[in-house]
Amino acid sequence: MTYELYYWDSIQGRGEFVRLALEQAGADYIDVSRGPESKGQGVGAMFAVMESKSLPDIPLAPPFLRDGDLIISHVANILMYLGPKLGLAPEDQAERHILNGLQLTITDLVAEVHDTHHPIAVSKYYEEQRQEAKARTAEFLDNRMPKFLGYFERVLRQNPHGPAHIFGDRLTYVDLSLFQIHEGLRYAFPRATAHLDERYPHLAALRGAVMTLPNIARYLASDRRIPFNENGIFRHYPELDKEMD
Amino acid sequence: MTYELYYWDSIQGRGEFVRLALEQAGADYIDVSRGPESKGQGVGAMFAVMESKSLPDIPLAPPFLRDGDLIISHVANILMYLGPKLGLAPEDQAERHILNGLQLTITDLVAEVHDTHHPIAVSKYYEEQRQEAKARTAEFLDNRMPKFLGYFERVLRQNPHGPAHIFGDRLTYVDLSLFQIHEGLRYAFPRATAHLDERYPHLAALRGAVMTLPNIARYLASDRRIPFNENGIFRHYPELDKEMD
Repeated sequence: MTYELYYWDSIQGRGEFVRLALEQAGADYIDVSRGPESKGQGVGAMFAVMESKSLPDIPLAPPFLRDGDLIISHVANILMYLGPKLGLAPEDQAERHILNGLQLTITDLVAEVHDTHHPIAVSKYYEEQRQEAKARTAEFLDNRMPKFLGYFERVLRQNPHGPAHIFGDRLTYVDLSLFQIHEGLRYAFPRATAHLDERYPHLAALRGAVMTLPNIARYLASDRRIPFNENGIFRHYPELDKEMD
Repeated sequence: MTYELYYWDSIQGRGEFVRLALEQAGADYIDVSRGPESKGQGVGAMFAVMESKSLPDIPLAPPFLRDGDLIISHVANILMYLGPKLGLAPEDQAERHILNGLQLTITDLVAEVHDTHHPIAVSKYYEEQRQEAKARTAEFLDNRMPKFLGYFERVLRQNPHGPAHIFGDRLTYVDLSLFQIHEGLRYAFPRATAHLDERYPHLAALRGAVMTLPNIARYLASDRRIPFNENGIFRHYPELDKEMD
């Protein structure tokens, strides 16, 4: 069965956490919004689901995944569903909930990164809330980023199976998501993240390990990997970035 | 087995979504932070878990649930775990993911409600970001609240089993959470929510149905239900509220 991923066609955004899992597993999937309209794909196909007047349980926002008749929304939920099928999560129910808790902490971090450039209104441009964005970004870089990254570094360090993975002794989708967080923060805030590797060595090692996985390396070098840009979650606005002590 | 809920002792906050599920099910649980230190409870017991240097998979923030050795963090994750055990979710795996998607949309809404009074920095008081809070709240009331509530109203309306429940034909934890959202928004923004019942009739009916469930009614009348206050997620600051067209 081919998985159908529905997300915006021109950004990594929240969809990227799902793409990384599908790519690492070599799964058969379609990135629907990026496909041709002639095949019933494209962004219109995504809106058709969201705006359906008859489907039950329609999602409010992308990303969502279609697996046959089933439609699953929200990144953490999609990954929890796909995890065991893709060999990127334990089969054990209790362990799956532990992994899901870690992914939901990443969800919170991603929301805070988004709000660094949109602290007041998602319906307005960044340029209309630039002053507030400066204040919110300062708070993020001074307090929130260290809190989240320090937390993940600590979970790696306290992993009874060793710090190579965030959970257990093998690769899970949360490891892939932590790679993406690392990449995104470095793209958005090159100055503020200059000391990231030194301060969070286990996270840095995990990033290095993930980016050299053959399937991930192949994906990153392909045109399926959309470059970071200023429409996504991680945006590089030099005036928001700053040197850290 | 007694469930242990860990959350702040003096607010409804995010923990309330879990409390409502436990109360409706008549589950055996301890609200640890509100218990006596003499029994190893109190807020200190919560910090002891979060600050443990040896436990694996420690949570970054409350609420979290302890069920024997298992520690589960994040509201939606806790509810997904408890749901089938408490008879408040289907046993079917696919259906549980649909329900989880709905709960995660509530999570997003709750985060946005929080940010109406803290748009810049969680580390600072509301009074230090009041101007930005006014702008963010206006955006919330004008655009975001209608988007979320309109969405849930539509999911109720499109439920093939009828609009009495958000999913399927019986009560789930998401119904209880929607009641809490309704209560919270009415507390925080009495003027802006004056027309809520008229505009979202299915949501209003659901609220009425939930609050008259015997176990819920008993809980709401008890001193276990902490009153809304200005330390929680839903805060009533009259200067942020406004009449809606």
